[in-house]
Amino acid sequence: MSDPMRILLVGAGGVGSAFAAIAARRDFFEAIVVADYDEAKAVKAVAIDERYAAARIDASSAESVAALCREHRITHVMNAVDPVFNMSIFGGAAEAGADYLDMAMSLSKPHPEAPYEQTGVKLGDEQFAVEQDWKDAGRLALVGIGVEPGLSDVFARYAADHLFSEIDELGTRDGANLVVTDDDGNEIFAPSFSMWTTIEECLNPPVVWEKERGWFTTPPFSEPEVFDFPEGIGPVECVNVEHEEVLLMPRWVDCKRATFKYGLGDEFINILKVLHTLGLDSTEKVRVKGVEVSPRDVVAAVLPDPATVGPRMKGKTCAGLWVTGTGTDGQPRSTYLYHVVDNEWTMREYGHQCVVWQTAINPVVALELLARGTWTGAGVLGPEAFDAVPFLDLLTEYGSPWGIKEL
Amino acid sequence: MSDPMRILLVGAGGVGSAFAAIAARRDFFEAIVVADYDEAKAVKAVAIDERYAAARIDASSAESVAALCREHRITHVMNAVDPVFNMSIFGGAAEAGADYLDMAMSLSKPHPEAPYEQTGVKLGDEQFAVEQDWKDAGRLALVGIGVEPGLSDVFARYAADHLFSEIDELGTRDGANLVVTDDDGNEIFAPSFSMWTTIEECLNPPVVWEKERGWFTTPPFSEPEVFDFPEGIGPVECVNVEHEEVLLMPRWVDCKRATFKYGLGDEFINILKVLHTLGLDSTEKVRVKGVEVSPRDVVAAVLPDPATVGPRMKGKTCAGLWVTGTGTDGQPRSTYLYHVVDNEWTMREYGHQCVVWQTAINPVVALELLARGTWTGAGVLGPEAFDAVPFLDLLTEYGSPWGIKEL
Repeated sequence: MSDPMRILLVGAGGVGSAFAAIAARRDFFEAIVVADYDEAKAVKAVAIDERYAAARIDASSAESVAALCREHRITHVMNAVDPVFNMSIFGGAAEAGADYLDMAMSLSKPHPEAPYEQTGVKLGDEQFAVEQDWKDAGRLALVGIGVEPGLSDVFARYAADHLFSEIDELGTRDGANLVVTDDDGNEIFAPSFSMWTTIEECLNPPVVWEKERGWFTTPPFSEPEVFDFPEGIGPVECVNVEHEEVLLMPRWVDCKRATFKYGLGDEFINILKVLHTLGLDSTEKVRVKGVEVSPRDVVAAVLPDPATVGPRMKGKTCAGLWVTGTGTDGQPRSTYLYHVVDNEWTMREYGHQCVVWQTAINPVVALELLARGTWTGAGVLGPEAFDAVPFLDLLTEYGSPWGIKEL
Repeated sequence: MSDPMRILLVGAGGVGSAFAAIAARRDFFEAIVVADYDEAKAVKAVAIDERYAAARIDASSAESVAALCREHRITHVMNAVDPVFNMSIFGGAAEAGADYLDMAMSLSKPHPEAPYEQTGVKLGDEQFAVEQDWKDAGRLALVGIGVEPGLSDVFARYAADHLFSEIDELGTRDGANLVVTDDDGNEIFAPSFSMWTTIEECLNPPVVWEKERGWFTTPPFSEPEVFDFPEGIGPVECVNVEHEEVLLMPRWVDCKRATFKYGLGDEFINILKVLHTLGLDSTEKVRVKGVEVSPRDVVAAVLPDPATVGPRMKGKTCAGLWVTGTGTDGQPRSTYLYHVVDNEWTMREYGHQCVVWQTAINPVVALELLARGTWTGAGVLGPEAFDAVPFLDLLTEYGSPWGIKEL
């Protein structure tokens, strides 16, 4: 299978460090260079494996990415930083002739006149715009290969190939029952993911796809629905949120509708609405007693750092896809394909909290399939462009099985 | 009757400016010196009347207050600034031999171990501690003579003297149906009163008085109750809030229970709870990208300035006292004594929004009764220590009548 795999992991934050810890147990690659703007974080992440090396990178510079690729003869660039840096990392990989993977696509911009009805620039638009260049170069950009997007998209392909003859809706549903406690054991409000990004994601106009209408947007928190998550998580209030699955799935999987609903829960939805009502979600600086700050930065600053809450967190997180339509037997079918991870288990086994761990395992599995030659391709492709079965089998082999439930 | 009344008004903010505008139409005083830390605000407030003069004052310094009293031969000091400055203004008036009035009493401190069960330092404790000095000097400190406390306390005395033979509960109830709109006519969240102070007031442990127990505290937002306010305001959710009436009324009016419930409404209560959950109510500075700010200052900074919302505000505000017990006829009685003000009217008649105007009118009425010699006294006294009838008659004569409703 061609050259031995040499990976540049860009970002040694929560997801990047969990990626390094998971990959360390596998032998499909020759080397991983862990690069971060803060080199100390990279140095910390590489201590676990002698195949690893640390480097400093400026992810906002395609040149910096390309230079590091050339220096270390990188075959695959794994992007594990904030999607604001997607285009420079994506461009740097192309420049250096490396393959590319990310877990979130290039950012959207709302429609200037009708933000809650029509799409403006969509998630991934900037990446798909140069698809032909990647094809022509015979290089692969595998976009959105975390857990959501990522595993959810693999589920979509699996449902289309093996469970359904016709699909009405591909509905990603994400929910958890995670709680964080303080030193006295009292439950506290502490998001398991960056509050800054959660605000961004949840207050952007949610996108929906329908066969007749194409992509369109709605106001935030639209179509609330209580979804009953498996393995003891139970019912959680879910609402439409802008997410990559809605942009990816209809490109490769035949369906009538694609949605993403996030199980924020009543309390979190209420908090986000209040922050928006007061203008505390704003990123524009305000003057406060002689200094200037962005209100959203203040909100993030008063909350506990998500990277530190793992040891004080309890519960499970669930990523999955609810598929409705006609089964292969010609009967109506409603099936939830899912992946549940328990925080107690990830903390004990890997020392990483479950939300970042669940995101990180999927690109490791995908890279192993690419290294083996099981998955091959050129162009800008989503996870649903590949055969789902080997992915799901390897995920189970990693010790983290998926589940299926008729609804 | 003594010397002609010469008033030092400390504070030319919202309430102070409204006080100046209301007093300008009356002839019971010889002079008013309007003093503010920001002299430009004082200069603006005095432009309406030739009996007025402007001055600069440091309200945190009793010496500064006393010096200004002596310079202008002040007979009465009217405190219209934040209660954090109460003790220096109160002390400065005493030092200069002037009488003193305020609209909120010295601040409380929660009980160090059981903040939501027992009182610590109570509202007004510091002022009542020196009551004997004021009596000995033959000087009057009339405390809590705004609308609430103030008019509500006058209602308590009126109910005891004229409507009830026995009182079960003196329950102050404050509510409004004010809405603020933006330039496009959309309703926005914009408190009509300082957000910083509202957070302070609403998150402090609410205090309740019972004959058997004395004063005690509860957790914030306790005993929610929907009260139906008169004159078209309608039902509003009210909760216990720490307020002076509970400390004042039982000292002079015989009753079994005294409460204060504030008609914050569902939305405002929810916002305050969220701010508290996130820690955004905190006054301790946090570090945010290289600068230090207090989260509560940031919350106040992102909201519209309450002093500027008057022209964009619509609706009425109601202050009142719900009295239950046995009427003078021996029958059970439940009566609401109230005062409703329409923002459209105060803006048109006085150019001040209704909430500050309703607060400011009461000390003007009280000063006129003191100037006439109708009200006299020495010591630290609440409004309920004086005959209510002349006060209510003069309030009506000012063009702002009160109402009464059996419930």
